[in-house]
Amino acid sequence: MHFTSEQRLDDGVLAREFTLGEIPGTLWTPGSAESAAPAPLILMAHNNGLPKSDARLAARARHSVGRGYAVASIDAVGCGDRPRSAADEQTRADLRRALRAGEPVDEIFESLVGPLVEKAAPEWRTTLDALLPLPGIGGPVGYSGWTALGIRLAATEPRIAAAGFFAGGYVPRAQREEARQVTVPLLLLLQWDDEGNPRQRALDLFDAFGTKEKTLHANMGGHTGTPWFEGEDAGRFFDRHLK
Amino acid sequence: MHFTSEQRLDDGVLAREFTLGEIPGTLWTPGSAESAAPAPLILMAHNNGLPKSDARLAARARHSVGRGYAVASIDAVGCGDRPRSAADEQTRADLRRALRAGEPVDEIFESLVGPLVEKAAPEWRTTLDALLPLPGIGGPVGYSGWTALGIRLAATEPRIAAAGFFAGGYVPRAQREEARQVTVPLLLLLQWDDEGNPRQRALDLFDAFGTKEKTLHANMGGHTGTPWFEGEDAGRFFDRHLK
Repeated sequence: MHFTSEQRLDDGVLAREFTLGEIPGTLWTPGSAESAAPAPLILMAHNNGLPKSDARLAARARHSVGRGYAVASIDAVGCGDRPRSAADEQTRADLRRALRAGEPVDEIFESLVGPLVEKAAPEWRTTLDALLPLPGIGGPVGYSGWTALGIRLAATEPRIAAAGFFAGGYVPRAQREEARQVTVPLLLLLQWDDEGNPRQRALDLFDAFGTKEKTLHANMGGHTGTPWFEGEDAGRFFDRHLK
Repeated sequence: MHFTSEQRLDDGVLAREFTLGEIPGTLWTPGSAESAAPAPLILMAHNNGLPKSDARLAARARHSVGRGYAVASIDAVGCGDRPRSAADEQTRADLRRALRAGEPVDEIFESLVGPLVEKAAPEWRTTLDALLPLPGIGGPVGYSGWTALGIRLAATEPRIAAAGFFAGGYVPRAQREEARQVTVPLLLLLQWDDEGNPRQRALDLFDAFGTKEKTLHANMGGHTGTPWFEGEDAGRFFDRHLK
């Protein structure tokens, strides 16, 4: 793991870019990370591999650091700062076109996101291996964000102690099955009229999770309309399980 | 309004029994209610007219007082400390029997709870009139608990500024219609496997509420299995809208 740049943000958060082989990542830590007690770590991802530099993800990361967490995110293969394949770009264009046209998107979605999760999960585990020995970072580990990747990680990675998922309307077939193997405490947050995530599928996914300690939060509006207080609620969820 | 007894509880909360005509009620206030700034008021009721002396309701009331609220509850006609009619007792027995037998309960429920709400709502408004002028009690007013009564009150009583509802699987026809007229911020809390409240009906009710600022919380387990942290969440919901 090589740190390639670091920036002290105006709220005192230290944001460091790193590379781990081909994987580009960002690590956000409290201002005094080197000296303070180890902070629990949250792995934070955006749905469908949106870039780690996305403003909403960065804001969530800084909010969590303000609550005492270290936060890390990486770009998945073919996403963010990483080379894109022409085939994936075509599939993404097909998906956008089908969504606009109101056509069924399950097969396009499956062909795009299924492989994305398969490739991303081992990279997140590699990243976790590299992050946990760093000074200032401790366990336990939480996961926050992209539902499909989070299901795979929570079902296969015993170091993850709690998971917060968002949306969950479109999840590849493999992860819909794996949901039953998720047994850590979880919070599923959804938007009631999420234009890209059918409500009933998200409710069915919530029902399917194997854990007994699961909570559903839903608010009005579309995909990007989550109210501010859900950030606080997610923070308290992690506080209950990671501190 | 006549206070008939008062008790200082071990957490410093002042619990006062009162009567208002035929209506028996309890008012819980912070220890120093007489001198401090007026506390916002929460009207708190149990589903289907369970008594105001019920231990879970009293615990919720004391928790809210600890957050700086005054809390009041009354017994509905035919409930708690008030005279019961033989007809209502028979209907309650019919309801319990039908629930045990797994038979449809809609009509029994309608005949019991429909009139209960009709009679209770004006009494709660009378109680609100009597409480608000008391020293130590101020607006705005919140409502917490029994969904059917709360819908009627929130739809017809402009002094209610926010409402927290519980369960909501069985709600009389009149209140299912009135849900569209509820426009105050609301939090609907339900138990995913509530034995007495069909899940889909509760979700349909959440969908029907007219307010744009509505939040759904759901947790695993049966009717009485709500986790402790939902009490905190409800408190923060009221803090956002009443303070």
